[in-house]
Amino acid sequence: MQKIRSGTLAALLLGGILTPSLAVAAPADSKAIRDAALKDEVAWAFTEGLTTEVGPRPAGTPQEARGREWAVAKLKALGLSNVRAEPYTMAVWARGHEAARIVAPFPQNLALVGLGNSGSTGEAGIEGEVAFFPTIADLVAAPDNAVRGKIAFVGHDMHPTQDGSSYGQFGAARRQGPSIASKKGAIAILIKSIGTDHHRAPHTGVQMWAEGATPIPAAALSVPDAEQLARVVARGKPVRVHLTLVSQNLTDQPSGNVIAEVPGSDPKAGIVVAACHLDSWDQGTGAIDDATGCGIVTAAALQVKKAGTPRRTIRILMAGAEEVGGDGATAYFKAHGAEPHALVMESDFGADRVWRVDFKLPTGHEDLTNRIAAGLAPLGIGAGGQEAGGGADIAPLVKAGAPVIDLQQDGTRYFDLHHTPDDTLDKVDPAQLQQNVAAWSVVLNEVSNASESLGIK
Amino acid sequence: MQKIRSGTLAALLLGGILTPSLAVAAPADSKAIRDAALKDEVAWAFTEGLTTEVGPRPAGTPQEARGREWAVAKLKALGLSNVRAEPYTMAVWARGHEAARIVAPFPQNLALVGLGNSGSTGEAGIEGEVAFFPTIADLVAAPDNAVRGKIAFVGHDMHPTQDGSSYGQFGAARRQGPSIASKKGAIAILIKSIGTDHHRAPHTGVQMWAEGATPIPAAALSVPDAEQLARVVARGKPVRVHLTLVSQNLTDQPSGNVIAEVPGSDPKAGIVVAACHLDSWDQGTGAIDDATGCGIVTAAALQVKKAGTPRRTIRILMAGAEEVGGDGATAYFKAHGAEPHALVMESDFGADRVWRVDFKLPTGHEDLTNRIAAGLAPLGIGAGGQEAGGGADIAPLVKAGAPVIDLQQDGTRYFDLHHTPDDTLDKVDPAQLQQNVAAWSVVLNEVSNASESLGIK
Repeated sequence: MQKIRSGTLAALLLGGILTPSLAVAAPADSKAIRDAALKDEVAWAFTEGLTTEVGPRPAGTPQEARGREWAVAKLKALGLSNVRAEPYTMAVWARGHEAARIVAPFPQNLALVGLGNSGSTGEAGIEGEVAFFPTIADLVAAPDNAVRGKIAFVGHDMHPTQDGSSYGQFGAARRQGPSIASKKGAIAILIKSIGTDHHRAPHTGVQMWAEGATPIPAAALSVPDAEQLARVVARGKPVRVHLTLVSQNLTDQPSGNVIAEVPGSDPKAGIVVAACHLDSWDQGTGAIDDATGCGIVTAAALQVKKAGTPRRTIRILMAGAEEVGGDGATAYFKAHGAEPHALVMESDFGADRVWRVDFKLPTGHEDLTNRIAAGLAPLGIGAGGQEAGGGADIAPLVKAGAPVIDLQQDGTRYFDLHHTPDDTLDKVDPAQLQQNVAAWSVVLNEVSNASESLGIK
Repeated sequence: MQKIRSGTLAALLLGGILTPSLAVAAPADSKAIRDAALKDEVAWAFTEGLTTEVGPRPAGTPQEARGREWAVAKLKALGLSNVRAEPYTMAVWARGHEAARIVAPFPQNLALVGLGNSGSTGEAGIEGEVAFFPTIADLVAAPDNAVRGKIAFVGHDMHPTQDGSSYGQFGAARRQGPSIASKKGAIAILIKSIGTDHHRAPHTGVQMWAEGATPIPAAALSVPDAEQLARVVARGKPVRVHLTLVSQNLTDQPSGNVIAEVPGSDPKAGIVVAACHLDSWDQGTGAIDDATGCGIVTAAALQVKKAGTPRRTIRILMAGAEEVGGDGATAYFKAHGAEPHALVMESDFGADRVWRVDFKLPTGHEDLTNRIAAGLAPLGIGAGGQEAGGGADIAPLVKAGAPVIDLQQDGTRYFDLHHTPDDTLDKVDPAQLQQNVAAWSVVLNEVSNASESLGIK
């Protein structure tokens, strides 16, 4: 199976779908569990239920708390064990009224959304002249006096990528832009949404103020609005914008993780964590970010349970507060980091098809890798040559050395929707969701039943 | 050419593109004007300029007035004659603050937009129980006591159609739904947006209160929000919604039409009207509705002018207030209805490619019809068998008997965008816009130079 492992190109040339005859090396139970999971209805029901009956679930809010209650009840009803919420408290940035308009030379409204931890303008708002920087590099290179006292406006030219890598590259405008602008003396910053769509749906997202940076109002324009403002700027006349970005900072708000388990037969074999996050941004109903992830890991754990008691305990971690800095991940690691984690995984990139599997396992586990690759090949999933990295909610575990497997999803349309009002149920394709459940079921089945040590002494 | 006229099916089988060899019957100047128009840059510049430098242009507002000033200056700069605004006054429904939320059983916000002439809830808003009707027919059939005191919520299942006909069929929920609900005693009405997209961008639009119907608050939910509310209703528990739809009614507000001409050599040959509308809804910048239409007719008139003085005067009519009832069309007809109109046309369906031409001409003009069909065939346009009907801004002229030609545009994606915040410049395809200009140039050239009488004595 080494050929498959290094054979991503061959898999792609076959249209991503390997014929079943190539999968004869897979254990019989991989085929059975895969076939059953391709008919799964749990992931859809979970996603539909959470997004409909709870809706948006911002971290540290009563809506997130309703999400936890909903998930605990649902996971119990589905027959999982040790279901409970694990509470913690956190600081919360709370969005208030937001609006923007071009005052001169061409008066008109702009669609925007505040970024997490934005400074507040107060209800009266602020007005200033726009200083445009086509890219974040242009802002970095600008002398302070080109920014001081102005509203910095930062563009970019982000395009969709299957692996989502353009988010990492172009997201710097959101992550670092506000602090850079603040240090250069800007009174506010507007960025072009870190998104690949052309809808009036601005993309929010968190940003953290760098050491020494004073919070200033910080917001993202929708892509069409950013293009419009750039056209207005290109006319060459001074452009003045009025911004209202009201927000407040709250302390000690309740949040929490939700845990559920499929108990294993061998307590010494370590735990397999299947993670997702329950919180969402406030604009949409958090369907692809990340109700589907929670639906996928729940459905897959139930597929393994249905096939019999696994050797290892599968622990579902539905983290809180992923969107705003990972308070849930930190709380989980504080409570459970010392327990033996045989393997950790996360689903947090929508519900479009898995196209690649990446591994980070201790040496000597090539046979397990090959079994997994063989089990995934009939789903059109190639084994990649990149090292798995996990997701935000398992990051502390990965950093501490836990083995990790990534089931990479197709991200081509993910950043059309990510963190916008458009992250809603209608964007989820039930057939691709089922392919995700099948991939996860194969991997959880192999890993939870593996006779290998996975580094557990 | 009779074969082409009745040969729409054959044209479609050829992929909509007839080979140039079939166009040999076209006059040489049709080919020249078509080739020049396919390189047109005026329509794009007009559309980009109006949407950027003016933006939204609601009827009877200062923004619409800025649109008129902009258009007058632009048309003069382009070298057109007799350029002027023709003012009138009108009643205006003015949108205020709008918001909605599900109060119970699953609290969450809903994205909605008020419909034209909606009643106002006042700032405090109203709350009521939802009565769901999957289609307008279900609302019509419902006994009054199923609606009285409730918020009627009307769905539909509209899909895209190339000819836009589903708008006529499903639009009844917007046009008649509010009056029907009011007469049955509803305290408000929500409709699923008359749209074919899945974005959180609700579609507004005008509705007129029927004789005897008391105005009630009336709004459209975005398609995803309507689907969400329907799912909530399907849970079987009473659903309560809070609505804030603030609006006011103003009288005697200034509006107006803008007129420009390419003067013809024969004043007795009658006028050819090329119409569009300058106003737009307030949510977007009115790019496809109808800045492109004004760009197309302007560019085409200039192409004819460039080829020489036409026999007939071409009069560009950029109407005001099309979106809210056609005050501009009424004012034009009142001022100019008695003048001899040889032929009238309108572009008001976006800027995607023209695929069909329809005619309504006096008998005995088959040769002109054939010349036009031959000139359009190289652009992939088939001659349809349906009778042309014109658009809203020329409706009084058509009703009075003016000959009319329709260049039918592809409406497949038009109702994804129509009357939403997403009607912005980025939705316009420059190449398809040029195909429109070419089609219009061919027709205006043939009609304005035709030796036929076109009914003018």
